[in-house]
Amino acid sequence: MKISMRGLCLAAIATAVIGSSAQQTSDFDPQSHSTFTTDRSDGKYVSSRAIAHNLMVANPPRLHYKSGMNPQEFAAWKDNMATAMRQLMNYPEANISEPPVKVKTVERDGYRVEKWEAYPLEGAVVPYLVMIPDGVNAEHKAPALLCIPGFGQTKELLAGETAVDLDNSTVNPTKNAMGYYYVKEGYVAVVVDNPGCGEPSDIERLAGSGADYVTLSRALLELDWSYLGYTAFVDHYILNWMKTQPEMRSDRIVVSGFSLGTEPLMAIGVTDPDIFAFVYNDFLCTTRERALVMTLPNAHGYRPWPNDISHLIPGFLTMFDFPDIVAALAPRPVICTEGGMDRDFNMVADAFATAGAPDAFSPHHYAMFVEDSSRTYLDEMPKGIDRATFFKLANVDPPHHYFKAEHILPWLRTILAD
Amino acid sequence: MKISMRGLCLAAIATAVIGSSAQQTSDFDPQSHSTFTTDRSDGKYVSSRAIAHNLMVANPPRLHYKSGMNPQEFAAWKDNMATAMRQLMNYPEANISEPPVKVKTVERDGYRVEKWEAYPLEGAVVPYLVMIPDGVNAEHKAPALLCIPGFGQTKELLAGETAVDLDNSTVNPTKNAMGYYYVKEGYVAVVVDNPGCGEPSDIERLAGSGADYVTLSRALLELDWSYLGYTAFVDHYILNWMKTQPEMRSDRIVVSGFSLGTEPLMAIGVTDPDIFAFVYNDFLCTTRERALVMTLPNAHGYRPWPNDISHLIPGFLTMFDFPDIVAALAPRPVICTEGGMDRDFNMVADAFATAGAPDAFSPHHYAMFVEDSSRTYLDEMPKGIDRATFFKLANVDPPHHYFKAEHILPWLRTILAD
Repeated sequence: MKISMRGLCLAAIATAVIGSSAQQTSDFDPQSHSTFTTDRSDGKYVSSRAIAHNLMVANPPRLHYKSGMNPQEFAAWKDNMATAMRQLMNYPEANISEPPVKVKTVERDGYRVEKWEAYPLEGAVVPYLVMIPDGVNAEHKAPALLCIPGFGQTKELLAGETAVDLDNSTVNPTKNAMGYYYVKEGYVAVVVDNPGCGEPSDIERLAGSGADYVTLSRALLELDWSYLGYTAFVDHYILNWMKTQPEMRSDRIVVSGFSLGTEPLMAIGVTDPDIFAFVYNDFLCTTRERALVMTLPNAHGYRPWPNDISHLIPGFLTMFDFPDIVAALAPRPVICTEGGMDRDFNMVADAFATAGAPDAFSPHHYAMFVEDSSRTYLDEMPKGIDRATFFKLANVDPPHHYFKAEHILPWLRTILAD
Repeated sequence: MKISMRGLCLAAIATAVIGSSAQQTSDFDPQSHSTFTTDRSDGKYVSSRAIAHNLMVANPPRLHYKSGMNPQEFAAWKDNMATAMRQLMNYPEANISEPPVKVKTVERDGYRVEKWEAYPLEGAVVPYLVMIPDGVNAEHKAPALLCIPGFGQTKELLAGETAVDLDNSTVNPTKNAMGYYYVKEGYVAVVVDNPGCGEPSDIERLAGSGADYVTLSRALLELDWSYLGYTAFVDHYILNWMKTQPEMRSDRIVVSGFSLGTEPLMAIGVTDPDIFAFVYNDFLCTTRERALVMTLPNAHGYRPWPNDISHLIPGFLTMFDFPDIVAALAPRPVICTEGGMDRDFNMVADAFATAGAPDAFSPHHYAMFVEDSSRTYLDEMPKGIDRATFFKLANVDPPHHYFKAEHILPWLRTILAD
């Protein structure tokens, strides 16, 4: 066989996914092909890609939030959301009972950092950090936040630590160090890595290369699992451990996700009623709609897909889109810190009103979109756009994507006041 | 958000998948990291990729063929294989009844070529070619072969045609034109495209670019379907139509797959007892084993995956590997034309003996591996190898991957003699 046939098809993938890496080979005009069209008189499509697209359009999320539910209907809908999410996350049977172990403790200014290891799967180690303010103990418990990083971030970055073994006493809290800001507020911060990045990365780190989320995701997908399923399983395992820790208030556990970390936040949140509140630090993305409208091809005729397979959970988008999941967190307090479409914020707000907790949802826009007049209002995204246009129309300011301490810390003080 | 976060992560994918596109940044030695290792005294792994790999190792195919079954056990195993394959292929409910339509007929030397359109899904058109020898009709029926192309091939290539609209009367049968050779033998050849390539490709063709199987596959995977599931559904729809055609012998339908085309051959074959025989024109690959042993990283520390997501069917490899499926085709005649490991040929031969048809399996090696002394004999592939080493140890001669008329045509004359 040609290596390019059943092989990795490097060239095919490179061109198909990257596109711009190749030379333009024609006077092809991307704009004139921004959406799927057919010139057949019967309106049918020959393009397999168009057929798949139309199938996706014809199968909207079965559990999409609908306004006007009564309390019983809303409760039943939330149960269905949780059931669907459990099926999609496909946690394995817990097959071992080896409890997490504390492997190190270092003192910092006003708090200590403990390094722990969890063993959620046979032969597997998941390291995480626990940041505990001075004076917090079994007698003086504190709220506890599970902190989940964004793409490319590590638990050390979130903790303000500069060494995986914590041996460097110099802390360096950058503006994305959510764990550091939480512990300084007097809360316990439990900080995890995302799978495949940082300490749990594979050997690519030894070669000075960036984390390979994609091949890890492929291995998990072959097992009928997924990157998000594995992430949610591991994070949920640690969250359940948090519920048993003497210095943490099991009735005040908050999940705080940054960017990529908002995905496990949603997966865990909708399936675990024990979580008290949620910090959603990203824009509220309709990820299914984005895949459907971002069809503007590049100069080589390749239409993009908005993200890589670390975001692929087969069937996920046939059940719900992200705003539906955030709506299903009602009435528990949720702060969204980086805007999105008013359409989606209004939908989530409607769910919180339906749940009898209209004040529990705290949406914030990017600074440049705070003024109502500065935002774009759409009932639906236009078709055939590119990534930059999607972000612009969704009121997203990519250069200012960071941990929004200015919104989050005052909000936490309010909801965690008692 | 950074565009690289929930975005396509172009750089991450490019580096992760392509690797060689970046500069080597260290004295990293790939060979010293060819397999997954851990330096922990408890033998546990921190690397998420290693953990996923070990999960895959710990979950061998549930329906792996076992020697020594009695006839009842063998029949039950085949039923289980068919049930699992139907679930994995996940065909949609047939929701339309619009029959295929013949849209064109052209005369050729000793046969005619008809262009047909099938409408297996709402709003979808699947064009295919039917090649009928002169003198074959309802009174003088002929065996019929469904011809499925390899990666990058088109139905026109397999038919020896040079224009999608058949308007060019000059035929150009290259050595991979299986449909042409079949019709010249007096058989009916029904020739399909693979989805996303050739006539059913999207607009990339207009830009002079190669077919994008990957983004099409991603769209299908989001629907809890797959590239193979879609391909098998469409090919099976046309195969079922073949059973009803007056000039085709419904009791002599053969499926002939080249390279990528062997995958739908297996998916359709194990689920459809009406198929008389199978032409498997590729080496017999243990695709799961290949993923497990091909872990030698490149200079950038990225371990490969053997193929792209057009070969991803979530859960498939937890049920069976390719040789198990070929074994489940017994006792129906199967020719494998491009070798593989004797281990796997012996396993398939054992299945045919168990089925009481030891002569119905006709394995052939690549010419350079015909001599027993020229082949490598292994009970299992060594770990930590690269693609070239896998092919070498599997007795594969990639430059000589082509339609093996020299083996196939004589074999067909024998099995289709009556």
